Amino acid sequence: MRIAVLGTGVVGRTLAAKPDGLGHEVAIGTRDPAATNARTEPGGFGTPPFPQWQAGHPQVRLMSFAEAAGFAGLVMNATSGSAAMAALVAAGEAALAGKVLIDVSNPLDFSRGMPPTLDPVNTDSLGEQIQRAFPAVRVVKALNTMNCRVMVEPGRVPGEHNVFLCGNDETAKQAAADLIGSFGWPAGSLIDLGDISAARGTEMLMPLWLRLMGAVGHADFNFHVPHS
Amino acid sequence: MRIAVLGTGVVGRTLAAKPDGLGHEVAIGTRDPAATNARTEPGGFGTPPFPQWQAGHPQVRLMSFAEAAGFAGLVMNATSGSAAMAALVAAGEAALAGKVLIDVSNPLDFSRGMPPTLDPVNTDSLGEQIQRAFPAVRVVKALNTMNCRVMVEPGRVPGEHNVFLCGNDETAKQAAADLIGSFGWPAGSLIDLGDISAARGTEMLMPLWLRLMGAVGHADFNFHVPHS
Repeated sequence: MRIAVLGTGVVGRTLAAKPDGLGHEVAIGTRDPAATNARTEPGGFGTPPFPQWQAGHPQVRLMSFAEAAGFAGLVMNATSGSAAMAALVAAGEAALAGKVLIDVSNPLDFSRGMPPTLDPVNTDSLGEQIQRAFPAVRVVKALNTMNCRVMVEPGRVPGEHNVFLCGNDETAKQAAADLIGSFGWPAGSLIDLGDISAARGTEMLMPLWLRLMGAVGHADFNFHVPHS
Repeated sequence: MRIAVLGTGVVGRTLAAKPDGLGHEVAIGTRDPAATNARTEPGGFGTPPFPQWQAGHPQVRLMSFAEAAGFAGLVMNATSGSAAMAALVAAGEAALAGKVLIDVSNPLDFSRGMPPTLDPVNTDSLGEQIQRAFPAVRVVKALNTMNCRVMVEPGRVPGEHNVFLCGNDETAKQAAADLIGSFGWPAGSLIDLGDISAARGTEMLMPLWLRLMGAVGHADFNFHVPHS
C-alpha cells in the first residue's frame, strides 16, 4: 500500500518508519521539501535534522503535502494540532477525496505556556473540524492517546492496553484497524467509540496523559479499559 | 471514623453505604433534611426516594450539610458538579476547616443538552475551585473517573485498574488513600498525580468515559495505566 504521513517531526518519522519497515511505499509530506532537506540544526525537542533521519530510511520519500496526498492511498496526519488544518489544505481536497485519513494529532495550544490547553474542546474536536472541512475524506481519529513509539510498538507497554478509534465511515475504520493491527496491536485491543464526535473524548484525554507522564516518569504507558 | 457524605443521589448513597458497612459512623448531608425525608417520588434517574433507601441503612444519619460537616472528621463531596459549591458553602468553611475533603464530583454541564460539557475546563477544575474557595480544607480529588459502584467494589471490574488522586496536602492524600484502600483497592492501584491542578486531567476524562459507556454497554469498566 502507498501511505503518506503528513509531518516531519518525531511522530511523523515514527509513523513513517513502521510501514516502511513492513514493506509499504511510504512518503512523508512537508510544507517545503527543499527547506526540510536543507535543515542542519536539531528541531525544537532536540530532534535530529530531517536529512540525518532520512539517511537511515532511504526508501521513505519526502514530498510536498500535495504530492504526498496524491501519491498515497491512505494518509496519516501527524502534524501538530495547530498546523493540521493548514497542512491538509495544502495537501488539497481533491488529492484527499475518498481516501482514509488517520488523524493522530491533538489540538494542543501552547500559546498560554505549559501545560498546554486544548482548543477546541467540549463541543468540538480537531477530528470533527477536519471531517467538516473535508467532507469527502474518510477521517478516522486514532492513536492520539499515546506516545508515538507505543503507537508502532505496543509491546513497549506490558500487558493489555487499548487503541481508541472513531469516525463516520465504517470501512475506513476497518482499514485503519487493519493498518494499526499490522503494527502489532491485537484485534481485541481496538475500541471503536463510534462516530467522529468521540474525538472530543480522546483529545480531552491529553491533560491526564501529561500528568501521568509526570507520575510514571516516562512515556511508555498507555490506557487499558478492563470491563466485565 | 466519622464520615460525612454530601449528596443524597446514587453516588452519595453508594459512598455512604460502604463505610457504614465497614463500621464507620456515617452521615449523609443534604440541603434540607425535612424535604429529603418527605420524598415519595423516584429521583431523576429512577432512583428510589431517599426514605426508602435509608430504611435499608438505618445507621446512616441524614443531616443538613452544615451538621454533617461538623459531625465528621472526613468529608466526601458526592453532589453533582453544579451543586458542589453551594453545598460546601452551606456546609460552612468553619466546619470544614482542617478536614480532608475527598471530592468525587465532576463539573458536568447539562444545560446545553446531551452529551454534557465540562465547565470549568483546561485552565481550571472543580477540584481547584473548591480548594481556592476553602483554603483551610484539605481537598483530595479522587474516584471521579469511574461509576460509583466501582468506587466501592473494585472487583466489579476484572484485572488491574486504577484510582487517580491529586491534592496539595500529602497527609490528606494518604488519609484518602487509606479510606479508598479499605474499600478493596490494592495499594498499587492508586496513582498520585500530584497537586490539585491535576484534577483538570481527571475531570476532562469524562467525555471519553461517557463514550466508553456506550461502547462497552454498561458502567462496570475502569481505566488501567500499564507502564514499563
